Order: sequence, then structure tokens, then C-alpha cells
Amino acid sequence: MKKLINDVEQIVDEMLNGMTAAHPNELRRLEDTTVLVRKDAPVQGKVGIVSGGGSGHEPAHAGFVGPGMLDAAVAGEVFTSPTPDQVFEAIKAVDGGKGVLLIIKNYTGDVMNFEMAGEMAEAEGINVKQVVVNDDVAVEDSSFTSGRRGIAGTVLVHKIAGAKAAEGASLEEVQQTAEGVIKNVKSMGMSLHPCTVPASGKPGFTLAENEMEIGTGIHGEPGVERTELKPAKEVAQILFDKIQEDMQLQKGEEIAVLINGLGSTPLMELYVMNHSVAKILQQHELQVEETIVGEWMTSLEMAGASLTILKLDEERKKLLHAPADTVAFKR
Amino acid sequence: MKKLINDVEQIVDEMLNGMTAAHPNELRRLEDTTVLVRKDAPVQGKVGIVSGGGSGHEPAHAGFVGPGMLDAAVAGEVFTSPTPDQVFEAIKAVDGGKGVLLIIKNYTGDVMNFEMAGEMAEAEGINVKQVVVNDDVAVEDSSFTSGRRGIAGTVLVHKIAGAKAAEGASLEEVQQTAEGVIKNVKSMGMSLHPCTVPASGKPGFTLAENEMEIGTGIHGEPGVERTELKPAKEVAQILFDKIQEDMQLQKGEEIAVLINGLGSTPLMELYVMNHSVAKILQQHELQVEETIVGEWMTSLEMAGASLTILKLDEERKKLLHAPADTVAFKR
Repeated sequence: MKKLINDVEQIVDEMLNGMTAAHPNELRRLEDTTVLVRKDAPVQGKVGIVSGGGSGHEPAHAGFVGPGMLDAAVAGEVFTSPTPDQVFEAIKAVDGGKGVLLIIKNYTGDVMNFEMAGEMAEAEGINVKQVVVNDDVAVEDSSFTSGRRGIAGTVLVHKIAGAKAAEGASLEEVQQTAEGVIKNVKSMGMSLHPCTVPASGKPGFTLAENEMEIGTGIHGEPGVERTELKPAKEVAQILFDKIQEDMQLQKGEEIAVLINGLGSTPLMELYVMNHSVAKILQQHELQVEETIVGEWMTSLEMAGASLTILKLDEERKKLLHAPADTVAFKR
Repeated sequence: MKKLINDVEQIVDEMLNGMTAAHPNELRRLEDTTVLVRKDAPVQGKVGIVSGGGSGHEPAHAGFVGPGMLDAAVAGEVFTSPTPDQVFEAIKAVDGGKGVLLIIKNYTGDVMNFEMAGEMAEAEGINVKQVVVNDDVAVEDSSFTSGRRGIAGTVLVHKIAGAKAAEGASLEEVQQTAEGVIKNVKSMGMSLHPCTVPASGKPGFTLAENEMEIGTGIHGEPGVERTELKPAKEVAQILFDKIQEDMQLQKGEEIAVLINGLGSTPLMELYVMNHSVAKILQQHELQVEETIVGEWMTSLEMAGASLTILKLDEERKKLLHAPADTVAFKR
């Protein structure tokens, strides 16, 4: 295993310290936790937003902490849910009196631990709501999930719910807006190479030199099909078709598109992928309001990409364009 | 070779089209060229700034085109200098009457072709100046270079010269500011895994499972030492020591730090690296004014990282913090 690290046991701790060292004016680590919060948390009179999950998906989630997006990110061990007490600390740290929304990716451990933390906070008089993101259309259930998995579409939930909260909306309103994004965002991914969880030291799965996997999850969970290597345009068509089967997008509909690299796929390839995706969207006469290309929800050094499509309405469009000032996402 | 592409011959063309498809309000491709310019180029009354070089270093260079940084980026084939006629087209497209500065990374082909383009433009009455970035302290000469190579420090030249031009400075002033950055910016890199140029289909070099290379260039040029795999803190120390040997930074000096991923090194590892770098800088009682962590000057899917240190003065500090609104770098 070739990694630029010091100690497998300290990797999350050192990453979090490396982040606060790099961004001391933006991020603050809650003492004795794996929680990074906005430097100025809690923001009084604003709904707090907490997300997080296993580490290894950077810049998710701490890269999205800041004005216009998240108030706190809770980091678990690599590909492992954070414990309820860590999430509970995050909730307490970001409650500015208007309650806290938890944005959870749909994995059994995350849902259980975030829910438990929410209950602990409610018992202390903090108003907590939650939403669960399940944008991955690849599989209905998986090794770590009941129902669909939450993947890169989560970043759009962070962005839009974050902007709604920044406007001063109530907890119920922010939750409703987040639910609206979740209902209208679908993703599908593929991989060319696996990644290696540091503590295990071995790749999570194997792919032959001429093979790719369609529908792989962001922890290397099995996808829907293992197939021969295909050109980007065929990959784009497969991902789009599966999403479209579910979304049934109509001519003229306004959408946002996110092309997400899984870790080691060069930006050059992601833009080639977008070239192929854009052609398909044009054939379907869809109105692309925004395209976001880069690494947002990674899987360590996995090679591959995912396509996310979000159906827009006027509110989502406005909130997507609203300011955000986080380490990884600014506008 | 596993890449998410359609056709090795079309990879740069499709990447550029994928970029303009994603960012139609920010970037415009000059017809029949590999040049991307600011949508609103030429900006009247502002010095135009042109950079570029071989492709495969994304987001460099087109990701840095926009207000506050570059006016145009010229893309060559992968790891191959663009031809003079392409650079000439870029110069003509961004001259707003105040002249054009070329920011060139020190590779023989780039220097020759950008210089020739500058002469072509001068012959047409456009005032052109140039600077050559040679921040890599690893080697004095290399297979592609006379003198030191230009690597990730180039991005700080883009940022600071771009901010100076945005202030309305003259061509001579922008050139002088850029020269000031170049004199005070040093970098050093290392790699864990090679990358594969699409047209060749084979890795540019090989490293055993327990080996790393110190001082590798961004095209996989040989470094200074091939050694056993070391922990991040030792790597950080080696890179810092070599830079410090050259810079002789004194206690209390203000610096900016850039930790650059070469392509497939996860952001998690880059932050672990920054954790180790920050400790060393603290031991030397250096004043870190700004730390930038991410992928800025990549080498396709090479694994590894580079450390860049820029010595600040009041002007460089102010210009580093000035607004920039490009696809890959915003503040």
C-alpha cells in the first residue's frame, strides 16, 4: 500500500489537524472530537446544518463547512460512520437557537448514529430534524444500505439547504427544501480501479486491466454490471440512461449537472466525460443551467466518476447560485 | 491503459469542449485553436496575461482563466508544448491595448514557442513581455530543461500577476511583479506512482511497491533520489530542507504555502502532508500567511505531491488575497 501518511491509526486525526492548520480562519476543530465547525459557529438566528460520515470522501464533508453550506462536518474513521457522541457534539456546537438539520447519506450506520445523536440533542432541548440522501440509482439495496445509497448528489443538498438556511429560513423550511432536492437528484457512478482502505492495506475489490464496473458505490460496494472497458461516450450513455429511467426528464426541463471524480481520475478525463454527457443532454433538449466538474465526493484513490442530475425549480435554481464560501466550494 | 476517454487523438479537443460546455459563461474557445480565453476577452485597458503549456496538468492552465488571473490558456498535446501559432492567437485575442504578459514554465519547447509567438505579435504591433517560471529546486538541468523546471509555483505567479493586472498596472509593472514572485517561490515534489501519457499507453517510469522518487518533475522526469517509502513527515522534511537550502528563510518571515497533489493522491493525504509541513514551519518560526491545499498543477494520474513556498512582501500578500474568479481558483 503506497500512501503519503504517517500512521494508519492517526490518519483521520492528522487530516483534520492538517485542515485546521491550512484554514485557521475558516475552520475550527472541537476539542477531543473529529468535528470541524465554521470558525464563527454557532451562528445566532440561523438553522445549523450538520453532515458527515466516514472519512475517505474528501473534500466531503469538512471541505463544505462554511457560510452558505454546512456549519459542521463529523468525520468517522475511513469508510466508517462517526459515533453518535461525535455527532451530538457537532449539533450542540452549531445550534444558534433556531434548531439543527442533519444531512445524512443513506448508509445503515450513518442513519442510526445520526438519528441517535438527534435524539440526544432533542433531550437537551435542541430542535433537530433530519433528511436522508439516497440519490444513487444503481442499486435498490446494498451491503451497507437499506434502500438506495447516498453519493455525490449529497453535495447539492449541502449547497441548496445551506443557502436556504443562510436566508434565515426556519428549520422546517430548510428541511423541506432539502427534501425537495433529495426527491429531484439522482446519481450513478462507475469505476476503473479500486481503492485501498489504509487500515486494511488491500484493495476493496479487483478489476482486470480490460474491465470496468458500472454502478459501484463510494465505498467500493458492488455495482450492477462488470463489463469490458468502454469509451467515455458509452459510459456517459449508460449512466444517463439509468438516471433517466428513474427521472423521466422532459424536453426543455432545467437541470444542474455534477460530474464527480472518485479520486484518481484526472480532471482531463472528467471534462472529456462532460463533453460526452453534454451531447446526450443536448439530444434530449434538456436545459443545463449549471455544470459542476471536479472531485466532490471521492473514494480515496478510486478511479472512476459519477454523473448526478438535479431537476431544478425556481427556488433550487436561485439557491444553487447563492453565495457559498467554503474551503472546497465557493461562488 | 485504463482511462475514461473516447479517442487518444481527440483527448485535448474533447477536454477543451467539455470545459466550455461546463463553463459557457466563463470560458470561450477561439475557433480552430486549442486556446481558451475569458468570455469577455479582450478586456480594454488591462494587461492581458497568457499562460499554457502541454496538457495533462489540469486544472492548469485553463482552470485559471478568469477575472484576477489569466486571460487565456493555450493547451498543447499531453506533455507537449503548444505551437507558436496557437500562442500567437491567444495573444491577439487578449490584447486590450495595454500589452500582453506571457507566463511560461521553464521547458525548452515552451520557452521557444512562446518566445516565437511573442515576436510574431510584436511584429503586428502588440507589446509583449514574458517571464519564465523556474521554481523547482530539485534539479538544475533536466531532460526537457536548461535551468530549473517550472512546476506548481507557477500557479502563484498566475494569481499574483493576474491581480496586479486587474488593478490596472502597466505591462512593465505586471512583469516586474511576476518576476518578484518567481525570484521568491520555490517548489519540490515527489512521486509514489507514475502516470501514463495516453498516446504512449505505458507508464513513463516504474517504481517498486516499496519505492518513492524524490524530486520528480511534472512530466515524470527523473528526480534526485529513488528511495524506500517514507512516512509523510520524513517526506515533508526532505522537501522543506531542499527548499530551505535555497531560500534561507529567516525566523518570523511571512510565507505562503502550496501543497499540490499530482493527480491521484487523495486530499486526505495532502492534508496529512500539510499537518507534517505545518509542524516543520512552526519549528522554524515562519509566519504562514496562507496555505493552499489541493490539485493545481497535476501530472495526469501520477501519485505524489509537491511543496511550494513563496516568500511574501506587502505587495505579494495583498495581491495573493485579491479577488479571483476562475473555474478552479476563487477567492
